[in-house]
Amino acid sequence: METLIKLLPYITLGIAFAALAFALLTAKKILKFSEGTDKMKSISQWIRQGANAYLKRQYKVVGVFFAIMFVVLVVMAACGLLTFYVPFAFLTGGFFSGLSGFVGMKIATLSNSRTANACRESLNKGLRVAFSAGSVMGFTVVGLGLFDISLWFILLRDVFNETASSITSAMLTFGMGASAMALFARVGGGIFTKAADVGADLVGKVEAGIPEDDPRNPAVIADNVGDNVGDVAGMGADLYESYVGSIISSMALGVVAFAGDFKAMALPLLLAAFGIIASVCGTFLVKTGESTDQSKLLKALSRGTNFSAIVIAIVAIPLTWFILGKENLVFSVPILAGLISGVLIGKATEYYTSDTYKPTKKLAKSSATGSATIIIEGVSLGMLSTVIPIVIVGICIIVSFFTCAGWSELSDETTKRGLYGIALAAVGMLSTLGITLATDAYGPVADNAGGIAQMAGLEEEVRERTDALDSLGNTTAATGKGFAIGSAALTALALVASYMDKIIEVAKGAVTELTFDIMDPKVLVGLFVGACLPFLFSALTMSAVGRAAQSVVVEVRRQFKEITGLMEGKANPDYESCVDLCTKASLKEMVVPTIVAIAVPVVVGMVLGFYGVVGMLAGATVTGFLLAIFMSNSGGTWDNAKKYIESGAVGGGKGSKEHKAAVVGDTVGDPFKDTSGPSINILIKLLSMVSIVFAALVYKFNIFNLF
Amino acid sequence: METLIKLLPYITLGIAFAALAFALLTAKKILKFSEGTDKMKSISQWIRQGANAYLKRQYKVVGVFFAIMFVVLVVMAACGLLTFYVPFAFLTGGFFSGLSGFVGMKIATLSNSRTANACRESLNKGLRVAFSAGSVMGFTVVGLGLFDISLWFILLRDVFNETASSITSAMLTFGMGASAMALFARVGGGIFTKAADVGADLVGKVEAGIPEDDPRNPAVIADNVGDNVGDVAGMGADLYESYVGSIISSMALGVVAFAGDFKAMALPLLLAAFGIIASVCGTFLVKTGESTDQSKLLKALSRGTNFSAIVIAIVAIPLTWFILGKENLVFSVPILAGLISGVLIGKATEYYTSDTYKPTKKLAKSSATGSATIIIEGVSLGMLSTVIPIVIVGICIIVSFFTCAGWSELSDETTKRGLYGIALAAVGMLSTLGITLATDAYGPVADNAGGIAQMAGLEEEVRERTDALDSLGNTTAATGKGFAIGSAALTALALVASYMDKIIEVAKGAVTELTFDIMDPKVLVGLFVGACLPFLFSALTMSAVGRAAQSVVVEVRRQFKEITGLMEGKANPDYESCVDLCTKASLKEMVVPTIVAIAVPVVVGMVLGFYGVVGMLAGATVTGFLLAIFMSNSGGTWDNAKKYIESGAVGGGKGSKEHKAAVVGDTVGDPFKDTSGPSINILIKLLSMVSIVFAALVYKFNIFNLF
Repeated sequence: METLIKLLPYITLGIAFAALAFALLTAKKILKFSEGTDKMKSISQWIRQGANAYLKRQYKVVGVFFAIMFVVLVVMAACGLLTFYVPFAFLTGGFFSGLSGFVGMKIATLSNSRTANACRESLNKGLRVAFSAGSVMGFTVVGLGLFDISLWFILLRDVFNETASSITSAMLTFGMGASAMALFARVGGGIFTKAADVGADLVGKVEAGIPEDDPRNPAVIADNVGDNVGDVAGMGADLYESYVGSIISSMALGVVAFAGDFKAMALPLLLAAFGIIASVCGTFLVKTGESTDQSKLLKALSRGTNFSAIVIAIVAIPLTWFILGKENLVFSVPILAGLISGVLIGKATEYYTSDTYKPTKKLAKSSATGSATIIIEGVSLGMLSTVIPIVIVGICIIVSFFTCAGWSELSDETTKRGLYGIALAAVGMLSTLGITLATDAYGPVADNAGGIAQMAGLEEEVRERTDALDSLGNTTAATGKGFAIGSAALTALALVASYMDKIIEVAKGAVTELTFDIMDPKVLVGLFVGACLPFLFSALTMSAVGRAAQSVVVEVRRQFKEITGLMEGKANPDYESCVDLCTKASLKEMVVPTIVAIAVPVVVGMVLGFYGVVGMLAGATVTGFLLAIFMSNSGGTWDNAKKYIESGAVGGGKGSKEHKAAVVGDTVGDPFKDTSGPSINILIKLLSMVSIVFAALVYKFNIFNLF
Repeated sequence: METLIKLLPYITLGIAFAALAFALLTAKKILKFSEGTDKMKSISQWIRQGANAYLKRQYKVVGVFFAIMFVVLVVMAACGLLTFYVPFAFLTGGFFSGLSGFVGMKIATLSNSRTANACRESLNKGLRVAFSAGSVMGFTVVGLGLFDISLWFILLRDVFNETASSITSAMLTFGMGASAMALFARVGGGIFTKAADVGADLVGKVEAGIPEDDPRNPAVIADNVGDNVGDVAGMGADLYESYVGSIISSMALGVVAFAGDFKAMALPLLLAAFGIIASVCGTFLVKTGESTDQSKLLKALSRGTNFSAIVIAIVAIPLTWFILGKENLVFSVPILAGLISGVLIGKATEYYTSDTYKPTKKLAKSSATGSATIIIEGVSLGMLSTVIPIVIVGICIIVSFFTCAGWSELSDETTKRGLYGIALAAVGMLSTLGITLATDAYGPVADNAGGIAQMAGLEEEVRERTDALDSLGNTTAATGKGFAIGSAALTALALVASYMDKIIEVAKGAVTELTFDIMDPKVLVGLFVGACLPFLFSALTMSAVGRAAQSVVVEVRRQFKEITGLMEGKANPDYESCVDLCTKASLKEMVVPTIVAIAVPVVVGMVLGFYGVVGMLAGATVTGFLLAIFMSNSGGTWDNAKKYIESGAVGGGKGSKEHKAAVVGDTVGDPFKDTSGPSINILIKLLSMVSIVFAALVYKFNIFNLF
């Protein structure tokens, strides 16, 4: 056992490398496929250039922010408010999070035309290429995550000889770096992709009446670039943050629950390692036949994810026994609870967003009475869809906590075990992230492939195949979002617990036990303020999309009017100006929301003290969870209702008045599901991490002395 | 002082009668005005009949519910879980709440044609009639409220010789009756009005291209009936509940804070009485010139409300001194804080919803790019508009609590004083309800008057005047909603505090002090569940509107198709079938949401115990507050953006593509602002009251024994 603990980070480092190697091999396999016709190649080239140009400029802006924060953290460290590991940990977290997004985007932009070309041969081949691209992203994220954690572990323990608790303390700050980077990527990418998408749809589909992805639409390249910088690069950074966040927060709480014993850190780490292995095996099970039937395609993907989940379920119990001993076998329960909850939330999301079930079908029907009713019904459906996930997470929290803490009267000791349990549930939920992310990230690749098929004028059959893949991608994206938000809620709670430990550490004996009474007005007002943050945040990101989209609309209308011969296909539109417009708008708009997320916890702390901060974190977690599910699911179901109508199952098909109403729903849903909704997951964790990092500062400078 | 306390309920009873007498006199004055032409009379007659028929059937359904609940409460009382006052208090609360709505609606339906006719003479005369109708409602609500409280006070103290604490305990249950009735009225009326409105607009305005309130539209009478049963009867019951709820909850906490002293009950009661007097005086200041300029009209109304608020501000300090003594003068602070907060929330609401300010103007401009962008921008605007009210309420809570509790370390004693302070803030906010409600309730009367003017084919000038009044009504309605939700949050918190006192009473010595740690998983899961309830509730009410509206659309389309000569104005539509359809739909749909509101607190209590319930109440209050503001303000701003476009200030005026986009926004906003949003205010208080009434039951039957 001793030896295992000693070797632990080296083993996980090895598995991290294995994951990265698997990603590399998969990438090489993809590159062997043909990119198709010259036309396809050149379109793919345009998309690639736009995406690269955007990321380059995004990293510049983010770089400035990280430089400033680095200086702030160094100054704070110099004042004795932080250790000197913190600024560097912050930087690495941000770097790897950004890298995850970058690699994912790189491979996605190399796979889009290859997927389209593969679809010319068969649906299965198309699925394999797109899914492989998703796998590269999935395993890059988990590989880099485990790599970063393992490396810091080795560095702090074996080079600097730090204790377990100061190791986890430093690690929490690289979580902050990862979250900050993820927020930039999600918000910036989310604004880009939706501004382009909404802009392209509004003028192209609604006004000019040309189909989606028509090469005459000047915003069409920007739209496809957006899929890559938002849904791929943004999601990669986001899930890197989720993955790392869940592992480090459980390590931190484990160290507290087991009085500094390294073995409590070993459990989540090894679980993550096993999850990677199980995910790699799962990827080999994904294949399909020639039917474009949604349920069959979904089954093909589910085979892989289900297999991985079952492997982890089987491994969890002996692993816990082996590491924590027989007397602590109860800690395997939250792992299983988390795993099952993740799957159930995914199923619930699928139920509310996939057109194979009643809700989306009913929504599609409501298009008969116009766009207003489809909006009302969609909002209602999204709100309704929060109930099941809330119940699932509620049960998961109760089970995870009380099985670990024991069902009798709580002590300080047992409470800590219970909180460790909650954190482990998040790790359990994300343990198979490698493959769930692969099924999720394949969607935008398929979407791009469809765009290329359309623009390059490929056969109708090819477009049908890519559409089938794309539509499935909407469902898996929603499922992925379910995982992301479920784990975000659990991780955020674990981080609040870590924050409480931090307060006790910072107060240096002034307090030893803390209770945060919900009726304490400071906690209560904190709760109100925190609950408001996801609303504020969504408002900012949504209006940013609205503004940016309007500028795209104006530009597209201008081109339609001024470029003669464009509508007849005799002249080419100016794609670049739209890409440039989206880039500028999204970079400008992503700064304010991020600053809000970082400034508010500090301000609340200085005004309302620690009690206010805890209330704020709880409030933000709760409403953030609800708003994120509501917005993601409303958006998902609108999108699929539109596709359902396009398939001719309801209403008059493409171009009918039902379809026009559904397009409005889909357009409203775009920023809901791809900008605001997913950013909230990151927001609620970033708030906690910022609170932890700035705890000592807040303790020193507390205006009303409200503690 | 002794004598004053003895005479107190008799004095307030007298003032209650005075308020009712003032309402009666005003009503008589209105009836002296002419109803106008025969055509106007008959239209008004139709509306009256429809509204009466609806209310009659609504009261039947509600009657069944109250009968069942009465039996349940009697059985519980027989089992010793409640006192025998409770079932009767429950009934009277429901009765008076319903009566408030009934009287308001009665006078509103008698004033609509009179307002239209008065507008033929001058704008000022129209304003006077409509405002007088609003006043009747306002003073009926406060009169009945004070009457009910005073009567029970006299009965329990002077007939049954009960102590102060058992008096307030019984009074809280008539709050539950009032809330339950209010919820039925708001939800049922809200569904009716919006189903009719949305249905009429979708086919009439959007599809057939006929103007609003065109007599050819078969749903036009249902639409006007809806204004009365929803915006008048529903609002009357709602605000009766708010008014009574704030007073009784502060009386209950006062008794706890002042160890059973009747004088703590006297303060809120007398404050309410003075508020009535100040409001009566304020009504005489409302008059205007001939300009239809919004800001001038608004000034006319503000003169009255500002005057009343200033009077109360001046009275508050000597009144507190006189009743609680010089040493307790701090209790005047929360009264002022509440008053000011109410005004500020109103101003913030006005800023975000009135077209004299930037946000609504900008929203109107976003219609240029279609209905999707106006929806996105409106949702964003509504979410953004939650920030200022949250900050105001937060400051109000902190100030109210800490000035009363003292800023040093808290004890059980001082905490109780602080909570009483929060409750007093709610009373302060609602003290001038008589006049604020008058300015609010006048809106639907003006709206109806406009409808009658249009249907009766009156001169363009008349319609312009009613439109000006109606548009102002949108702003005052939003302001009124701001008051309602602000006070609801404070009252709900006060009720949670009362619930905690109730737990200690029920547990009979098993516990003496309670802390509800926000990180206790039971509290936390309760928080999640509670936070979800407003989402669930909104989903249910909104989809009910969607369903009902779709059935109206189908019916209207049918009539347009089947009745020959209808579009040419040669044949009359079948108005009654639409009224009947809305009635049936809304009565069917209002039951489930109300049952949810009553069942969930009991179920949560049985599963998660008292801790879970407190978490649930806090969660529901916080997200309920946010959702209610978001939905009310989004709806208000869409409505006014549409009106702004119609005025020609932006876009191409009526019938232009900008206008069409804005109509979609307005239609989506309808259930937001008139069904779901305002119902949430009631919901969050009803949850607390149900928890209080069923506390003893939950204590006995607690599944997991989690207490």
